[in-house]
Amino acid sequence: MKLLSSTKSFDGLQQQFRHDSEVLNCPMHFSVYLPQLAEEKREHRFPVLYWLSGLTCTDENFSQKAGAQRMAAELGIVLVIPDTSPRGDGVADEPEYDLGQGAGFYLNATQEPWKQHYRMYDYVLQELPQLIEANFPVNQRRAICGHSMGGHGALVIGLRNPERFTSISAFSPIANPMACPWGEKAFGAYLGADRSTWEEYDATVLLGRAMERLPILVSQGEEDQFLEEQLKPHALQAAAEACGYPLKIEHHAGYDHSYYFIASFIEQHLRFHADYLLAH
Amino acid sequence: MKLLSSTKSFDGLQQQFRHDSEVLNCPMHFSVYLPQLAEEKREHRFPVLYWLSGLTCTDENFSQKAGAQRMAAELGIVLVIPDTSPRGDGVADEPEYDLGQGAGFYLNATQEPWKQHYRMYDYVLQELPQLIEANFPVNQRRAICGHSMGGHGALVIGLRNPERFTSISAFSPIANPMACPWGEKAFGAYLGADRSTWEEYDATVLLGRAMERLPILVSQGEEDQFLEEQLKPHALQAAAEACGYPLKIEHHAGYDHSYYFIASFIEQHLRFHADYLLAH
Repeated sequence: MKLLSSTKSFDGLQQQFRHDSEVLNCPMHFSVYLPQLAEEKREHRFPVLYWLSGLTCTDENFSQKAGAQRMAAELGIVLVIPDTSPRGDGVADEPEYDLGQGAGFYLNATQEPWKQHYRMYDYVLQELPQLIEANFPVNQRRAICGHSMGGHGALVIGLRNPERFTSISAFSPIANPMACPWGEKAFGAYLGADRSTWEEYDATVLLGRAMERLPILVSQGEEDQFLEEQLKPHALQAAAEACGYPLKIEHHAGYDHSYYFIASFIEQHLRFHADYLLAH
Repeated sequence: MKLLSSTKSFDGLQQQFRHDSEVLNCPMHFSVYLPQLAEEKREHRFPVLYWLSGLTCTDENFSQKAGAQRMAAELGIVLVIPDTSPRGDGVADEPEYDLGQGAGFYLNATQEPWKQHYRMYDYVLQELPQLIEANFPVNQRRAICGHSMGGHGALVIGLRNPERFTSISAFSPIANPMACPWGEKAFGAYLGADRSTWEEYDATVLLGRAMERLPILVSQGEEDQFLEEQLKPHALQAAAEACGYPLKIEHHAGYDHSYYFIASFIEQHLRFHADYLLAH
């Protein structure tokens, strides 16, 4: 693990690292925000919020544009921000923005040419937390949050692993990927033609089957240009109503799909997670 | 004036415009943040904070990375963010980042080939406020703030025109450009070899001559890589002490020259300006 940069932010440190991922079989970048680590706090262990970004992003978009450090510093939460796919010349790719590098969809691919590297599900669930918990002043309380493709990833990884997380939230998630063009294209390529294998990566399907019910907050802008065709929060809401899952989904008039929307509501999401991450 | 984009942010609108600048003799982009304009507030006129960005920036860096909208919304202040130089194929340029496009230094050039377009001083002081005050729900209370080259610009434009502004602030300003490599290169090119003409664009010189004393806040990171060679806040501080100017200059341990520094202290700067912009 190599430190690439370290920048003071709200009394803490915004850092970027490179490491060789065994799971993804390539070098990866990730970013971390550490609240103030004064000498007197050196023994303190912080809980962690994992943030998963959307299509085309790296670990830098959220770090630079969401304004999350202010509340993370105030609440005492470490932020961990992985990249959105394996990367590099030796990693399969497509010229389109919605498949290949920058579009890992937080799943374990089973098909050629993707399966050698595209295992973001295992990376985010296992390898990255192990690395974080071995090298940073954190405890084992974890929450997960994301935007768009990363909102899908947060919902899927959280719903399938309720013992690993205290809470889940998402901005503008791809909530029912089996039934939208982005999801059908990516799942078809990464998972193959058998749609039954897609279900374990579809938040709307998983929510209906959830035995343990983590708190979930979803924020959606009503002027989001991808709302009806790609995101389908109403499918998730219907699944929650059908099974009585206490999903909190908020529709915000006038907001679009951008980081300006995320920045406007990141404080609410951090406070939501803090209620569980910091609970006694 | 053409609206290029409009994005909801913290209940207000982040907008980008293009217009044909007479002063700069080229089309220009600028950005505006408007706090919530609910129907019942339609008659309200907001004060304006002008933000001047640093070398290589456009109007988008501050808009996306500083997190200023939150406090602008809360306090009720319009943000206006111009580009950092004239732009376009017909505008003189140099390949280096510190001269030409992206490096206008907020002055009126007198030398060839610059003088046909490089008049950012008049643009920021006159043309842009006229445009803003004719087209947006603002009053004539103005404050000015900036970063690095833009901190220089804010100090110079504010100190020379105290009747136009309520208050001045700067992050990491080029505080004594006549005595640093960036300033000597730019002033030599734009203003020519006669250094006496440089003085009207040097904050340290101007502060020592100021008859009317606007409130000034300067924030400087102690780990800023440009601190000693380019920024020279101590020269500004010495000038203030020599003449008894009540300059408030704060040195922050550990912070660098980046937008992470700006984001960490933008709330303080907005509250500083609000004390004057919103005073009865």
